[in-house]
Amino acid sequence: MADILASLRSSMASHSPPLDALVVPSEDYHQSEYVSARDKRRQFVSGFTGSAGLALITKNEARLWTDGRYFLQAMQQLSDQWKLMRIGEDPTVDAWISDNLQREAAIGIDPWCVSVDTAQRWERAFAKKEQKLVQTSTNLVDEVWKNRPPAEINPVVDHPLEFSGRSVTEKLKDLRVKLANEKAHGIIIAALDEVAWLYNIRGSDVSYSPVVHAFAIVTLNSAFLYVDKRKVSSKVSSFLQKNGIEVREYGAVSSDVAKLASNQLDQATGVISSQNGVCENDTGDNYLIWVDPASCCYALFSKLDANMALLQQSPLALAKALKNPVELEGLKNAHIRDGAAVVQFLVWLDKQMQEIYGASGYFLEGEVASKRRPETTKLTEVTVSDKLEGFRASKEHFRGLSFPTISSVGPNAAIIHYSPQAETCSELDPNSIYLFDSGGQYLDGTTDITRTVHFGKPTAHEKACYTSVLKGHIALGNARFPNGTNGYALDILARLPLWRYGLDYRHGTGHGIGSYLNVHEGPHQISFRPHARNVPLQVSMIVTDEPGYYEDGSFGIRLENVLVIKEADTEYNFGDKGYLSFDHITWAPYQIKLIDLSLLTPEEIQWLDNYHSKCREILAPYMDKNEMEWLKKATETPSSSDAAAIAHLGSRPAPFILPRLIRFLLPPFTRV
Amino acid sequence: MADILASLRSSMASHSPPLDALVVPSEDYHQSEYVSARDKRRQFVSGFTGSAGLALITKNEARLWTDGRYFLQAMQQLSDQWKLMRIGEDPTVDAWISDNLQREAAIGIDPWCVSVDTAQRWERAFAKKEQKLVQTSTNLVDEVWKNRPPAEINPVVDHPLEFSGRSVTEKLKDLRVKLANEKAHGIIIAALDEVAWLYNIRGSDVSYSPVVHAFAIVTLNSAFLYVDKRKVSSKVSSFLQKNGIEVREYGAVSSDVAKLASNQLDQATGVISSQNGVCENDTGDNYLIWVDPASCCYALFSKLDANMALLQQSPLALAKALKNPVELEGLKNAHIRDGAAVVQFLVWLDKQMQEIYGASGYFLEGEVASKRRPETTKLTEVTVSDKLEGFRASKEHFRGLSFPTISSVGPNAAIIHYSPQAETCSELDPNSIYLFDSGGQYLDGTTDITRTVHFGKPTAHEKACYTSVLKGHIALGNARFPNGTNGYALDILARLPLWRYGLDYRHGTGHGIGSYLNVHEGPHQISFRPHARNVPLQVSMIVTDEPGYYEDGSFGIRLENVLVIKEADTEYNFGDKGYLSFDHITWAPYQIKLIDLSLLTPEEIQWLDNYHSKCREILAPYMDKNEMEWLKKATETPSSSDAAAIAHLGSRPAPFILPRLIRFLLPPFTRV
Repeated sequence: MADILASLRSSMASHSPPLDALVVPSEDYHQSEYVSARDKRRQFVSGFTGSAGLALITKNEARLWTDGRYFLQAMQQLSDQWKLMRIGEDPTVDAWISDNLQREAAIGIDPWCVSVDTAQRWERAFAKKEQKLVQTSTNLVDEVWKNRPPAEINPVVDHPLEFSGRSVTEKLKDLRVKLANEKAHGIIIAALDEVAWLYNIRGSDVSYSPVVHAFAIVTLNSAFLYVDKRKVSSKVSSFLQKNGIEVREYGAVSSDVAKLASNQLDQATGVISSQNGVCENDTGDNYLIWVDPASCCYALFSKLDANMALLQQSPLALAKALKNPVELEGLKNAHIRDGAAVVQFLVWLDKQMQEIYGASGYFLEGEVASKRRPETTKLTEVTVSDKLEGFRASKEHFRGLSFPTISSVGPNAAIIHYSPQAETCSELDPNSIYLFDSGGQYLDGTTDITRTVHFGKPTAHEKACYTSVLKGHIALGNARFPNGTNGYALDILARLPLWRYGLDYRHGTGHGIGSYLNVHEGPHQISFRPHARNVPLQVSMIVTDEPGYYEDGSFGIRLENVLVIKEADTEYNFGDKGYLSFDHITWAPYQIKLIDLSLLTPEEIQWLDNYHSKCREILAPYMDKNEMEWLKKATETPSSSDAAAIAHLGSRPAPFILPRLIRFLLPPFTRV
Repeated sequence: MADILASLRSSMASHSPPLDALVVPSEDYHQSEYVSARDKRRQFVSGFTGSAGLALITKNEARLWTDGRYFLQAMQQLSDQWKLMRIGEDPTVDAWISDNLQREAAIGIDPWCVSVDTAQRWERAFAKKEQKLVQTSTNLVDEVWKNRPPAEINPVVDHPLEFSGRSVTEKLKDLRVKLANEKAHGIIIAALDEVAWLYNIRGSDVSYSPVVHAFAIVTLNSAFLYVDKRKVSSKVSSFLQKNGIEVREYGAVSSDVAKLASNQLDQATGVISSQNGVCENDTGDNYLIWVDPASCCYALFSKLDANMALLQQSPLALAKALKNPVELEGLKNAHIRDGAAVVQFLVWLDKQMQEIYGASGYFLEGEVASKRRPETTKLTEVTVSDKLEGFRASKEHFRGLSFPTISSVGPNAAIIHYSPQAETCSELDPNSIYLFDSGGQYLDGTTDITRTVHFGKPTAHEKACYTSVLKGHIALGNARFPNGTNGYALDILARLPLWRYGLDYRHGTGHGIGSYLNVHEGPHQISFRPHARNVPLQVSMIVTDEPGYYEDGSFGIRLENVLVIKEADTEYNFGDKGYLSFDHITWAPYQIKLIDLSLLTPEEIQWLDNYHSKCREILAPYMDKNEMEWLKKATETPSSSDAAAIAHLGSRPAPFILPRLIRFLLPPFTRV
């Protein structure tokens, strides 16, 4: 690691101009969240393996910025050459550079690995002390990376209409209407999921995301795909051709953007004449090229005249988020198969934990009966997550995981995006909480679910925390809200039950999900951070509901379901705005044993009962006899199981009348 | 009215340059919400009497923009020469001008009546079509206003330390630290409440707000007050002098700002030298003058070089919002006396409604027993609000109302900021809801309270709506939240119970309140509208909690208490952020008869019971025997009155065990 920094500093010194600092972001040329092995430059230089982070190397220092999900993991992984910078607590990278590097410092960046937004924000910050953002002509990390993985040639496949639900022709037509509305001649599409979605193609260039390393340019007349042609079979080639898409080499995007800038790529009506610094064609309209500043790299943007770029969110971001009926149907079905896999995993794990570790098991709260039976193989975070993958793999349309499974025991569960490694991971522990956050890529949809379980005797504190997280999860999922509401306003609903005790969590509450695409997608989100791109929640969007609570060094809790936004069936419609609500499409039980029932309202208990009834009903076709018995028991919610409720309420009077009274006190409520 | 528009259009035509449009805002030279009679220019030209609105007069059209509180009122008051523009639904005034007036149009404005923020926003919007904002040298409305009320000479008084809690010397010292931190030489203070707060003076130049028409300039060395000197007695003059404040004529502010701009008012260290377009003094620091762009008028700002103005929120906004212990104590005491007046009013009104109108009264839900007794004087919205004012006036330290009382029967209650007029107002009605929103100015604090009552038989729908509003009111008041949370995030808590039914309200949920000052003050607020100036809620701030529901043509409901923000007594302190909660300081019962108890949770019922117990206890010293009896009855909440609860829950079983069980199911909760 020391060698890498030394080599980089030597490259920085010999660069023209010499660099006082080098920024190494996590992102690839497409600003992807998950990147291929050869694009993990930030991981290579810093040793930190989290999905989000930014490395800054100066002459004497190395600092890594990352967010609250990764504070613990980064502290464990960074060597003492590195200093961790906590996003939200420490100064931002641009503020730090502006405050700490000298006047006129040169800060290097590979312009292919940084978005227009980010580069421009940095340039503004650096201007205060006349510091300069220097675009390096090669990637300095690649130069010192001796064993950089080679590029893979993974085939591009077409994503058929039975899953995509809308043809490329229709999508291109929609897009061109939006271009015309904004008086734009064309658009540069750099986000991999937008390229895949628009052209109905998929690939396997990036782990966990079935995307293809490719750019696209669409104009009012033409459509181009920039991709390594070796990946395109003649079948796919003819599919693309039929849809009017011309395939060009990946590297040609750079010169083609330059051609687009001078209207040489495909002639717009009239020719460009530059008057008063504004590019116009003969019809007098501006010649505009739409560029999404959050996903397009600075390298391509720099080839356009500044006044030619229409810098705003790509229209594909919202179009892709609004699922069509075929996609919605597919997502729902994929989530049922996925829920079945999760339940099968729990049944299996429950049995193992009892047999191997003498745990009291999923249902009973007891002390551990015996030590691990020596003749058995030990269960680790990695082996059980492999087992979970196996259950998923047995399901129809499965194509792989949608992100690295977070499989975490006890203190590891407090590392929000923990990723266990076979060599170092923990053994399962009947006395500790086990949290798993995982998802699958199915041809008909992408899934993402988190459950937290305990196979022994949870502490009262663990139960109180689990229950507070559950209350927030239910409150958000049950919300009804008018059109125009965004996820920033809703976020508090998931936190309020935790805040009551002075507890909180350092991550957002919900993200969109692609349709057999990225497990994280925008443009909407549910978060306490206001975000300029955060659009209001709308009918047919998908969003997760995943509050948590994490106690460093001790345990972590998270519960996550996927929700679909639909029109709410409200009695009134004040202001004619239309009101919205959520449908849960994730199906797997919550662990009753971890719930402190005295903290739930009758309404929450009834919600739980309804959700569990539906789980039973929906998953039944996938269960064998033994699994079904387990599922029945796991979904016996307190209102249908007086004994459990009473046990928790202790020795107070009138137990026999309680369940009736819970219903008796109930206000009308939203059914699952 | 037609004459006014014709005269104005004639002035516009003869103006140099001729004006295509004239903007007439509601605000005075200080951007005040409530203005003196002679400053009600927008009301004079349009006939619309609401506190917020903006008139635009073009050659052929007259349009009035106002917000959701005033849609109904504006529709009633505007003649057919005017078109109502609904803020939030219709285009903003600048967008409308840019879209609808011709290229290069000249739009006139009196630069004393518009803030820097607003003027600059308009200029940006107008630039698109090369339209121009023209600063008129006189106010065109004043020229055509024949009987404009004359300026009044109201005495300035000093606000003693026993109420203000902090001396002028200390406040000036705090302010100068903030100036120094921002490297500013001085600040121009235009907001009337900031001038009054900083100099510990009060006056009566504006109805409802005990402020003085005055500007202030404070530099690192000097402090000036610009006021009509006839208002300043020798006693006050010597008080100001002792605090190092120089009194100058109101009109001198204009030339003094010009002097300040050239460092002639009071010498800053060194002299100004202009290099690279940046004003610097000899020490090399910039010569900066702090100007709050939201409260300072464009006229004064225009006298500064643009690069000299430090355009950011006045430091006094936050300083004033963070109440000191003396102010907090005063506010709490004022609210107790004010609550006593409200209860005395309700006791009186209850008796009148029964005696005069044969109403079943505050407690019973019955049909009206008889018609109005002809020998009695009828009760109107105005006569009863006068009576309420009388009860307040009998209390210690009372100095007047804090805003025009909203006293509204039935459909009038749906007009959010309804202001009844003696000639046209409605008679009280035993079959209708009565809403009153009112407050007092006391030397030790300013109050603001809303209650909604019914003296006959409310409909099930009215009860359901009242209960939903109450649930939101309780949910917000009971929230605990970490430091850093702003009112935008909390707003949803007050709306969620209404949203469940597809109901909502078109106004914010909470505002700050001055200390014997403006009833509305920032910089914080609780609102669904994100606001750049909205700062996080902090310990010792005051904020109202006032959700509502309004059914046009039918009825309106609003419940409002004043809350103090304090440190929450949470079990944990995740992230070491510190958690906050609210204390209610308003004391007056909610009407149990209007509550549908089946919609409340046991926790909400218990909260109500606690609040009512405290009301009883706190107000007792002010009640005579009869009033105390009424108050006891009014504060008998269901959990202490089984009969009421059971009546609502109908004929279901186990009534005797219910109250015990409600407590039995209760989670720990925040006490009032």
